[in-house]
Amino acid sequence: MLKPRDSVRTLPTYRPPLGGREGLRLDFNENTVGCSPRVLERLRRLDFEQLARYPEREPLEAEIAGFLGITAPEVLLTNGVDEAIHLLCETYLEPAHEALVVVPTFSMYRIYAAATGAKVLAVPAKEDFLFPTEELLQHITPRTRLIAVANPNNPTGAVAAPGDLLRIAREASHAALLVDEAYFEFYGKTLAGAWRDLPNVFIARTLSKAYGLAGLRVGVLAGDPEQMRAVRRVSSPYNVNAVALACLPEAFADRDYVQRYVNEVRAGRELLQRAYADAGIKYWPSQANFVLARIGSSDFIHLMRERGILVRDRSSDYGCQGCVRITLGTQAHTDRLLGALQETLETLGLAQGASQS
Amino acid sequence: MLKPRDSVRTLPTYRPPLGGREGLRLDFNENTVGCSPRVLERLRRLDFEQLARYPEREPLEAEIAGFLGITAPEVLLTNGVDEAIHLLCETYLEPAHEALVVVPTFSMYRIYAAATGAKVLAVPAKEDFLFPTEELLQHITPRTRLIAVANPNNPTGAVAAPGDLLRIAREASHAALLVDEAYFEFYGKTLAGAWRDLPNVFIARTLSKAYGLAGLRVGVLAGDPEQMRAVRRVSSPYNVNAVALACLPEAFADRDYVQRYVNEVRAGRELLQRAYADAGIKYWPSQANFVLARIGSSDFIHLMRERGILVRDRSSDYGCQGCVRITLGTQAHTDRLLGALQETLETLGLAQGASQS
Repeated sequence: MLKPRDSVRTLPTYRPPLGGREGLRLDFNENTVGCSPRVLERLRRLDFEQLARYPEREPLEAEIAGFLGITAPEVLLTNGVDEAIHLLCETYLEPAHEALVVVPTFSMYRIYAAATGAKVLAVPAKEDFLFPTEELLQHITPRTRLIAVANPNNPTGAVAAPGDLLRIAREASHAALLVDEAYFEFYGKTLAGAWRDLPNVFIARTLSKAYGLAGLRVGVLAGDPEQMRAVRRVSSPYNVNAVALACLPEAFADRDYVQRYVNEVRAGRELLQRAYADAGIKYWPSQANFVLARIGSSDFIHLMRERGILVRDRSSDYGCQGCVRITLGTQAHTDRLLGALQETLETLGLAQGASQS
Repeated sequence: MLKPRDSVRTLPTYRPPLGGREGLRLDFNENTVGCSPRVLERLRRLDFEQLARYPEREPLEAEIAGFLGITAPEVLLTNGVDEAIHLLCETYLEPAHEALVVVPTFSMYRIYAAATGAKVLAVPAKEDFLFPTEELLQHITPRTRLIAVANPNNPTGAVAAPGDLLRIAREASHAALLVDEAYFEFYGKTLAGAWRDLPNVFIARTLSKAYGLAGLRVGVLAGDPEQMRAVRRVSSPYNVNAVALACLPEAFADRDYVQRYVNEVRAGRELLQRAYADAGIKYWPSQANFVLARIGSSDFIHLMRERGILVRDRSSDYGCQGCVRITLGTQAHTDRLLGALQETLETLGLAQGASQS
């Protein structure tokens, strides 16, 4: 009788609520209008030949390294950041090891770390989801091999100061520190290049958020060339598809397009946070393209959906009881969001500053 | 000091010779002319919205299951067959276990199995690369957890009889038997559904060969629903990109297109095998879209390339010293191949039946 490994048998299934997503998509932190037109033009010029060939990742890694101001041996393109996390866990973790995550955070760190059989220790964020540097340091042991930090964090929007992350990397030099910078474009601070002093630091970037290309599946894992050589060994040479590889340079090259989008998101973030403050709703200041708020009602999600707006219930995340995460998009989408929010808060009797915290 | 796991540190790097592939591509067993026109039409109709959203795999699994005559819980779409192998190894193998492969064969079984820390035992094929059923059975131990068989096999084109595979599955009921049917369309026999009696049987299929979509990265792993539930846990929900998901039904629906292509490949396979026989060159009868032959000269590859034809050196595979693998394509491509082959054999003084075996 064939049995999966114990660590797989006990693994939680991550099943995001993708079904029936009709409406304004403010539920998955995607770009609400999509990629640069240059990307779609490139995609439409693809021909039989490019689809028939196995994709060739390496030339693109050199090109993307240029965009990021680092070198090709420091870069591995991945099938979304999910694969970057998967490969790092597989490269460094085994059952005798420990992985540290700060909760609440993105679920895949825990899933891929636990799949290896390593013990996953969840360090709770401090009050108001602030980054628990001291608590994280206290949990480092000789068995620690991976520390995964989303910065900005999802679903809270909170950030860890670069200095704190570097301190952790220094104290845990025997462990990989993954700084997942999926929301970098909305924040602006990076640890790119930190591996030149601290070779256990890795960063991840994605084309799924600011760039509007979640469908293409492109992540970037970057780190010390020697460490990256090991990570490459567990990666398929064909992990990133040809369409993504062809479109990638267009996406990176059209900086203006992304910058304009990011500016609209940032402005919308301020407006949404002000709306929450005015209504006396507890929210957490965000450096990403979303804001988490304790609206205290599952009716809220239902009423927003009736107004054509999809938002994400985060109630089951650690410390997030009654919390909803709303993605920001273009200015027009923010206008629509704020109108629907106002109506919904009124319907729920929350519009007059009744605190739900 | 951060160190990769021992099993990763000692892993061989798989670096296929993708660079500078100018000419008629008979080196990677791809489709030489590409996919059904319906696929490209679908791809060109993709819009911003579909690229911006996270891909939704599940509805497509139901559709693909229909094409394969099985059910949705039996199917997992993967990022190429590479990912199917990766996920199976991760689901079942740990360091105390053993994996069995028949050599020579596709490299990724060994790489992903070894990455888990399991011991990989290579069972040599019998004379003329015939499938070593008895020898494989003798290597099964209580620690065996994975047996990977490419059927037809790559790079030999040899096949294992379904009855032999079922016997192995029965005797090793505690191990996953992966039958990689990447070249199924050129052969015609499958173990699909065998898991209903023997729940440790899995098959893999690909869109990279007959369907002409190696660039899109789509594999299909199928097996017993209970076992597949475990495999799904280690898979990202977003492992297959949106372009591939959109195009997949078109590729499967245009059966005539693929059947015509397969017919041309099969006819070409006969012609190439006859040419080798006429020249007295040792070759192995193939059930796939390629033929392995012992041409005994690295000059051969160089001379073929000078004539615009890319072929693949398999000299470093087990038992394949001096062997070259040539992919078959359309009738026009076979004509071109045979012309270049004849000239090259003449140049090398091999055209008159000089045996190199």
